[in-house]
Amino acid sequence: MSRIYNFSAGPAMLPEAVLKQAQEELVDWQGSGMSVMEMSHRGKEFMSIAEAAEADLRQVMGIPDNYKVLFLQGGASSQFAMVPLNLLRGSTKADYINTGSWSKKAIAEAKRYCNVNVAATSEAENFMTIPAFDSWNLADDAAYVHYTPNETIGGVEFHWIPEVGDTPLVADMSSTILSRPIDVSRYGVIYAGAQKNIGPAGLTVVIVREDLIGQTVERTPTMFDYKTHADADSMYNTPPTYGWYLAGLVFKWIKDNGGLDAMAGINKRKADKLYAAIDQSDFYANPVDPQCRSWMNVPFTLADPELDATFLKEAAAQGMTSLKGHRSVGGMRASIYNAMPEEGVDALIDFMADFEKRNG
Amino acid sequence: MSRIYNFSAGPAMLPEAVLKQAQEELVDWQGSGMSVMEMSHRGKEFMSIAEAAEADLRQVMGIPDNYKVLFLQGGASSQFAMVPLNLLRGSTKADYINTGSWSKKAIAEAKRYCNVNVAATSEAENFMTIPAFDSWNLADDAAYVHYTPNETIGGVEFHWIPEVGDTPLVADMSSTILSRPIDVSRYGVIYAGAQKNIGPAGLTVVIVREDLIGQTVERTPTMFDYKTHADADSMYNTPPTYGWYLAGLVFKWIKDNGGLDAMAGINKRKADKLYAAIDQSDFYANPVDPQCRSWMNVPFTLADPELDATFLKEAAAQGMTSLKGHRSVGGMRASIYNAMPEEGVDALIDFMADFEKRNG
Repeated sequence: MSRIYNFSAGPAMLPEAVLKQAQEELVDWQGSGMSVMEMSHRGKEFMSIAEAAEADLRQVMGIPDNYKVLFLQGGASSQFAMVPLNLLRGSTKADYINTGSWSKKAIAEAKRYCNVNVAATSEAENFMTIPAFDSWNLADDAAYVHYTPNETIGGVEFHWIPEVGDTPLVADMSSTILSRPIDVSRYGVIYAGAQKNIGPAGLTVVIVREDLIGQTVERTPTMFDYKTHADADSMYNTPPTYGWYLAGLVFKWIKDNGGLDAMAGINKRKADKLYAAIDQSDFYANPVDPQCRSWMNVPFTLADPELDATFLKEAAAQGMTSLKGHRSVGGMRASIYNAMPEEGVDALIDFMADFEKRNG
Repeated sequence: MSRIYNFSAGPAMLPEAVLKQAQEELVDWQGSGMSVMEMSHRGKEFMSIAEAAEADLRQVMGIPDNYKVLFLQGGASSQFAMVPLNLLRGSTKADYINTGSWSKKAIAEAKRYCNVNVAATSEAENFMTIPAFDSWNLADDAAYVHYTPNETIGGVEFHWIPEVGDTPLVADMSSTILSRPIDVSRYGVIYAGAQKNIGPAGLTVVIVREDLIGQTVERTPTMFDYKTHADADSMYNTPPTYGWYLAGLVFKWIKDNGGLDAMAGINKRKADKLYAAIDQSDFYANPVDPQCRSWMNVPFTLADPELDATFLKEAAAQGMTSLKGHRSVGGMRASIYNAMPEEGVDALIDFMADFEKRNG
């Protein structure tokens, strides 16, 4: 079969050029006689791969020198514990913003380690919007402010950065990192599971301001201490080398394709046209406040949920898969990360119009 | 360049047949139109991969039904904390056997959570042997007994299983798992980083007896609780899907090549001939007690350490790499896991003889 348009929320599509390069050099990386998977992480071949990946990510995101970039394991779910364990630094309180499913998971884990002040929540609005900043009740003595810039399940996204003064701002950027330029200097910690815009699952990128490293809660597991990994350039133990390599290929692909400005332009265009197609139809609906609709995850419902199964089946037959909405939301969800070609979005829009014509 | 013989201690060689299959289907897995890396971990394609991998591992190792098999992240270094956090179950004491560098790391981490009783140690013998079982001072009230069946750095290996009665036996099998048949029922927990005999780095396999799951130390991170992963079939969060897939290819390769009995036969033969070559020479030496020499990691020294660099350079020129010994030991180390072909060991032995003739 030819390549499909895979709208999965993650793991998700990777750029075809990246996959083809990975394929070409899978058994023998650049004449080394071995696969990247077989390389000692401390050997010169992998060190060159690792360093190039970090350098490219730093360049693409404009990461200041006083930030460490860590290539870890464990996903955002591990960060839900690592953030309080590392960032409380003697405090007992942290601010969290609750904008949906992933915020709630972060909050639940943080509550095991500190008093969580939910400074703002859109739960009463069923997470269909983002609380206006002037309504936030930030605590004076919070160790940090945590938020989720893009909620993968609900499809709501911050198109602005909260101004929280000197309190470190912490962001779970799993499903929005690299989709647009971002001012890293506004953050204390940015973390992201790789499996949306970075690379394969099993790699977690953490960008942490150096002054926040080194004061963990007592009995924090060594592997959950940012200092462990920062001091060892993410090689305290064997890192997920193949994921790191693939992430490097993706960073280079972004550079070669115009960087994050170009990504943002394409991503906005893709999202705008898909939302426009939904809005101009009485058959499809997206319930999210237009001011905070996600560029990456576009949930939508059909007028008649009885048609969902037919929609999914016909879409799959036309090479468009993983459109089923999250079980907690229902309906459909089109995840359109960097690697989803604009042609994929166009094909989906065409199919949606045709399906509506036949069933609307 | 053609394939080299890579003697790295890990990440290490993978079977060429596995790499070639992975290469062939990297961009399009079995006509699905997507890479395994792009698959939703909850989709039917990846579920079939995941289930087949577990079934094959269970068959190859003969894992009893009352054991869970977990496909995790974080390496053995994370298990060093997860073992006490999960297995103390209200107790404050655990037995550890100290046979080298990795034992010491496990002990250091466990000390953060409990009283560690080092029931036996070969530190006085510079870890060149394994303490006889009748010298072990196991505690009556230990929650578990932890040991390292194969020390990757020192090259010492248990060729027997300690008989510890009803106390759960816990083993860091990172560098010996799948090298020979093992009676899983003798263990409470077996864990292993993948990057030696299982697959690529970034995957950790944990085999845990069900009755040991569910009583963690207070404030254990959710991701460090075996129950989190056991209840969710290792899909509480996104697992390292590509590593899981590759591990599945390796398990199948083992099955197709005669299973663990066949692996053990080849591994013993490879190790025996390499040790014989070392022992019959006055130029090379292995300091380890012959009763506990590792089948997987063979450290050896040259009569004149000044020749080390030349040895490594000439070996590399002949396609034999990563032979440099660990910095804490010096000299050379040949790691000869399952995927190292017997021809690779033969080539090393031939080169060693030739090098000795020219320099001895």
